Amino acid sequence: MKNRIIIFVITLFTGVSYACSQVDLSKYVDPYIGVDGGGNVFPGPCVPFGMVKLGPDCGNKDWNAGWDPTGNIHGFSHVHVSGTGGGCKYGNILMLPITGAIQLNDYSSPRSEEAIALSSYSVKLDRYNTQARLTALSKSGFHEYTFPESNDSKIIIDLGSFLQSHEKQMLVGSEVRILSDTEVEGYSRIRGGWNEGGPYTVYFYARFDTPAKETGTWKSNRLYPGKLSQTDTNEKTGAYFTYQTVKGQKVCAQVGISFMGTNKAKANLEEMKSWNFEEVRNTAVNQWNEILSKVQLTGSEENKKIFYTAMYHSFLQPVNRTGENPKWASDEPYYDDYFAIWDTFRATHPLFTLLVPSIQTDMIRSLIDIYKHDGYMPDARSGNDNGRVQGGSDCDILIADAMVKGLKGIDYETALQSMIKNAEIAPGGDERKEGRGGIDDYNTLGYVSTRHERAGSRTFEYANCDFAIATVAKRLGKQEIAEKYYQRSNNWQNIWNDGIESLGHKGFLWPKNADGSWCPEDKFSVFTSGTWPDFLYETFSWEMSFYVPHDVNKLIEKCGGKKQFINRLDTYFTHERWDQRWFMGLFQISNEPGFLVPTFYNYAGRPDKTAEVVRKTLRTRYNTTREGIPGNDDSGSMSSWYIFHALGFYPNAGQDVYLISSPLFQAATLSLENGKELKITAKNASDKNIYVQSVRLNGKELDKCWFRHTDIANGGSLEFIMGSKPSKWGKSGELPPSLSTN
Amino acid sequence: MKNRIIIFVITLFTGVSYACSQVDLSKYVDPYIGVDGGGNVFPGPCVPFGMVKLGPDCGNKDWNAGWDPTGNIHGFSHVHVSGTGGGCKYGNILMLPITGAIQLNDYSSPRSEEAIALSSYSVKLDRYNTQARLTALSKSGFHEYTFPESNDSKIIIDLGSFLQSHEKQMLVGSEVRILSDTEVEGYSRIRGGWNEGGPYTVYFYARFDTPAKETGTWKSNRLYPGKLSQTDTNEKTGAYFTYQTVKGQKVCAQVGISFMGTNKAKANLEEMKSWNFEEVRNTAVNQWNEILSKVQLTGSEENKKIFYTAMYHSFLQPVNRTGENPKWASDEPYYDDYFAIWDTFRATHPLFTLLVPSIQTDMIRSLIDIYKHDGYMPDARSGNDNGRVQGGSDCDILIADAMVKGLKGIDYETALQSMIKNAEIAPGGDERKEGRGGIDDYNTLGYVSTRHERAGSRTFEYANCDFAIATVAKRLGKQEIAEKYYQRSNNWQNIWNDGIESLGHKGFLWPKNADGSWCPEDKFSVFTSGTWPDFLYETFSWEMSFYVPHDVNKLIEKCGGKKQFINRLDTYFTHERWDQRWFMGLFQISNEPGFLVPTFYNYAGRPDKTAEVVRKTLRTRYNTTREGIPGNDDSGSMSSWYIFHALGFYPNAGQDVYLISSPLFQAATLSLENGKELKITAKNASDKNIYVQSVRLNGKELDKCWFRHTDIANGGSLEFIMGSKPSKWGKSGELPPSLSTN
Repeated sequence: MKNRIIIFVITLFTGVSYACSQVDLSKYVDPYIGVDGGGNVFPGPCVPFGMVKLGPDCGNKDWNAGWDPTGNIHGFSHVHVSGTGGGCKYGNILMLPITGAIQLNDYSSPRSEEAIALSSYSVKLDRYNTQARLTALSKSGFHEYTFPESNDSKIIIDLGSFLQSHEKQMLVGSEVRILSDTEVEGYSRIRGGWNEGGPYTVYFYARFDTPAKETGTWKSNRLYPGKLSQTDTNEKTGAYFTYQTVKGQKVCAQVGISFMGTNKAKANLEEMKSWNFEEVRNTAVNQWNEILSKVQLTGSEENKKIFYTAMYHSFLQPVNRTGENPKWASDEPYYDDYFAIWDTFRATHPLFTLLVPSIQTDMIRSLIDIYKHDGYMPDARSGNDNGRVQGGSDCDILIADAMVKGLKGIDYETALQSMIKNAEIAPGGDERKEGRGGIDDYNTLGYVSTRHERAGSRTFEYANCDFAIATVAKRLGKQEIAEKYYQRSNNWQNIWNDGIESLGHKGFLWPKNADGSWCPEDKFSVFTSGTWPDFLYETFSWEMSFYVPHDVNKLIEKCGGKKQFINRLDTYFTHERWDQRWFMGLFQISNEPGFLVPTFYNYAGRPDKTAEVVRKTLRTRYNTTREGIPGNDDSGSMSSWYIFHALGFYPNAGQDVYLISSPLFQAATLSLENGKELKITAKNASDKNIYVQSVRLNGKELDKCWFRHTDIANGGSLEFIMGSKPSKWGKSGELPPSLSTN
Repeated sequence: MKNRIIIFVITLFTGVSYACSQVDLSKYVDPYIGVDGGGNVFPGPCVPFGMVKLGPDCGNKDWNAGWDPTGNIHGFSHVHVSGTGGGCKYGNILMLPITGAIQLNDYSSPRSEEAIALSSYSVKLDRYNTQARLTALSKSGFHEYTFPESNDSKIIIDLGSFLQSHEKQMLVGSEVRILSDTEVEGYSRIRGGWNEGGPYTVYFYARFDTPAKETGTWKSNRLYPGKLSQTDTNEKTGAYFTYQTVKGQKVCAQVGISFMGTNKAKANLEEMKSWNFEEVRNTAVNQWNEILSKVQLTGSEENKKIFYTAMYHSFLQPVNRTGENPKWASDEPYYDDYFAIWDTFRATHPLFTLLVPSIQTDMIRSLIDIYKHDGYMPDARSGNDNGRVQGGSDCDILIADAMVKGLKGIDYETALQSMIKNAEIAPGGDERKEGRGGIDDYNTLGYVSTRHERAGSRTFEYANCDFAIATVAKRLGKQEIAEKYYQRSNNWQNIWNDGIESLGHKGFLWPKNADGSWCPEDKFSVFTSGTWPDFLYETFSWEMSFYVPHDVNKLIEKCGGKKQFINRLDTYFTHERWDQRWFMGLFQISNEPGFLVPTFYNYAGRPDKTAEVVRKTLRTRYNTTREGIPGNDDSGSMSSWYIFHALGFYPNAGQDVYLISSPLFQAATLSLENGKELKITAKNASDKNIYVQSVRLNGKELDKCWFRHTDIANGGSLEFIMGSKPSKWGKSGELPPSLSTN
């Protein structure tokens, strides 16, 4: 009786605490936003940076997040990634409630009544007349299955199932063991997938609230009724639990997941303290509210829905796997599923730095620890293995960004070593895995020549990464190193071809051969898009020619001066051309290399044009539908881009610079980790009033169209006055810094 | 009753079969030979190429095979390597019979009554008054423990124990689970060690023949009596089983080992069909007899003891891990613990090709499968990870050797691809891991310059490896590739410095800078030995200057012609110089780069001098003591060198050439896999009669001092007449082939 009172008091206290510090913003999160139209976001239950992402694997199991809009459901698996492109990864430890005999060759079922909400997924499986409700915590999943009346109701656990597509995953092996009529454990070992990584093993331990009347296992395509375990012979295995059920009978399962072992998987169930679905779900929702409540908004419900869902999407990855690293023992944090830093260094990680700097610090520390044990920091990483590198060694920019924004607790000396290793030591055999490919050229010729793949992307990105190295070296007092890399950060100019003309603009990034000759114009065009083996990766010269984030002033000069540069930006943002199937603008927010370009107007003193492009993009490319994200969310990249611009500014990653665009909300209060608040107000802000008329930063008039992280890191205020017409604001103030002018 | 009869009949049949096909040669194997004096061979129970090598880990746990001569015994662990140098590897899943409380900080015990025989190890543990007897099969170990009278007898299983030294292993994690009063399972995950490899996991399942009265576990340094399992938190764990024993009571354990999972470890116990120590041991001994009986000898008992023990040592590694590959699923064989091919390509693998070509074929197939999945063939590999490369990419030579000796069932096209990858694609970040380091120099300058480590070893070895590539390309009809690599195989000449003089001989391998200038003589000496970061790896210029196996004729020319070359060999084999601590000959059979040099006299028409050097080496550097192997056995390399020369010939690996030296035994019959026999007789052979007077090969007079594999691959006869004085034989016949003269 005494105990009950104590529990009651604690519950009361928790409730009070919740009411004080958190508002239920979770209602604004709609996991359906962006599931379709290539957004590829993961719609199933999970918590911020959670290791378990529990959701359905559908159709041909070739959708990157497992879910697809119409395909049959094969089951619910526990590990997924969100918003990725290319080949699939994960889709491990799959469970399904069925009735009748198991058709091992295809047990999938059509679905109906699918309903997705934050940390809750439910669906009816028509083939079996069963229902499933799912929720999840950090390292465990909760399944609530509802059966019809049947003496052959079953829960199956398939350890040979995983997502598949091109750049495919392959089964290495699996093991399963039924421990009792309510317990089963085992593992699934897979290699490959998008990052072409080595083998990873997902262990599980599942317990059920109802004893099974019979159990069995399978191996390859053969069922073994009554057999309690299957041994790893590089084949698929699975297990099933059979129940006699009355109509509507529920059987629940709690499933612990681990990358270490089955004992650890079981221990990871400690966080799952209840057999009540709603209680478990509430625990997850509370974790989301803690993140979401870092930003309090005043504005339209529609925009809030887009915004908070974007926050939700931004905080899905990388995944916190501290304590779950099977490759080395370390006291450092461990994060996996950097998928990919090429995408997320631009907006997502800067968002973490602003809202959750302690987590961003942990991520940086994990990157350095990966360098120390695996040899290189990753540009992408998944399944405990580095890969792949799309362009530059973009983790360099994360380090520089952390340093200029004052993140503490990071070993910057070792970080610099790892950056220099990227720059100087070729990764060898597989140049898509890590480090920098083609540096035999870059470090001798000053550019990557056409004899290497992705030569254009690499040269331009390496230049910006070199600037990041210089940034860190300079702050560490290593002047000689800083000088060397500042110098190298000009290398983009070595493949700038002044002779190329397009749509009235001269000078473009252009393929150059190792002998110094240019690729002829009949072999390459400024509109040629490419991928892995090509000159440019997921971009084209018209767009990638803007990619000089560290020296926009020099870029302006190369483009013929400010006026011509503004014209060039205008063309980029307005020109439409026939692209095989439709007219398409040159600017596509769906592609990261263009992320920063809208704010380049600021560098030419025209923040009003930045506002126009940004607000048009927010308005036309983001919405609350299933296709509400402009393209592949790329691990929250599209979402983070939205968040920054909706708040009214955008980071130039690796530099202590935010460029002002156009705030969407009338007010936004950011609760910073240090307990301070950043209060953003935008008087008169509306769909029409998109132009900044004036800004006050921390109470002082701000006549320039940018500010520094240090200006807001300790809280403060950012007061915009908005209007329907361009104003003089920001046009004559100090311009943002650039390498060649600072 | 019926069953008993059947078993009796089977036993009888097995017995008869054994008597017909096998002689008990196991009595000639003394596992103590070479355990000390740096031989580092593994003395414990195991079977040919067996995955489990069960033996004691002693002293500071810094002896490469676990055993040391005097240190305390920590316990008996299941995975070891034999005859390795550098840092330790393995020493996993350690068990010990004790009495009383467990001192987790040091439970080791002094020993007495240690006795080692083939597949049997026994010892008394003085601290506890317990005894242990061990034997092992391919994937499982058998422990027979004898306890004193005690109500606190214990068997402990430590999953945090492993061998340690420089190039050290590190614990990644471990898990343990007691399943019943007679069963326990778990794993130990380790990374590092000599090859600086990634993490490997050793799983185990142990069952005892006696129920424990109590059990418990530990984690880190804390005991948990009664707790049945420990979870992986990157710390060491262990378990113990307690018994009440009467004096002399035996408790036996059968332990299955796996690199896949605990179920697989349990399944691997299937081979262990008896709880009777002798029965299990006999199974192991029979497997050894099957190997040993491939050579039937007539000669002294002493020499037979050395010979058969050398065979035993040669057949310990690489380890057959087919079905135990946790990195990919494949139908190809899987071998691990190539430790290292730099050692074993010279004599050990050629021995396999002669005696067990089907196994050598499987090994080559495993190398190609490793290339297909890990990116490079290994030069060394352990714990499922490539590393390290000491000089060349010597697996190239294995491929060429297999091809010229006609091994079937190998995908030579893919093999050639992998060889070309070695030659052309730099391994990157860690150039000690795989492939060829320094090829930015080698493939442009024609040599590895002094700006790279091991530049001398690499240049000379790459040249021979290039010859191997040309050999394979030519046989595949790829003339252009063959020509290119034949050309490159001359590259050793690019760092041959005619101006260097030593002990009256001119022209030596010499460090050359990238600008083409030579290293000055006051900075380098022909006597300078080196290791990883140096110009030469485990050799010195006087010795390594001979390393031109593919073009000995050109080497003779560079040395000033035959006469001068013979003089130079004489100097190499007779000169002694003060080497810090003692006078030392230039020639040291303890070091592989000198392995082939004795037979170089054959290339100059002086096989009598080959005989002298070889027989002196066999006589003075090999014996039946614990220091009976001239140096580190290097995974059977020293042993295989002995075997070939004791038979009277030695391979020039990668070429279809055996060079005749001087047979030790009066007769030797080799039972080949194809059912044919090679009968070697050596009339008058004795310690004095070391000179070949004449040879008949397959009944025909052989006037040259070499022959081809094809001459003996289908059996035949090799009839030597020996005498006490050099004869004219072999001096005027056709000389062995060389690149520049064939």
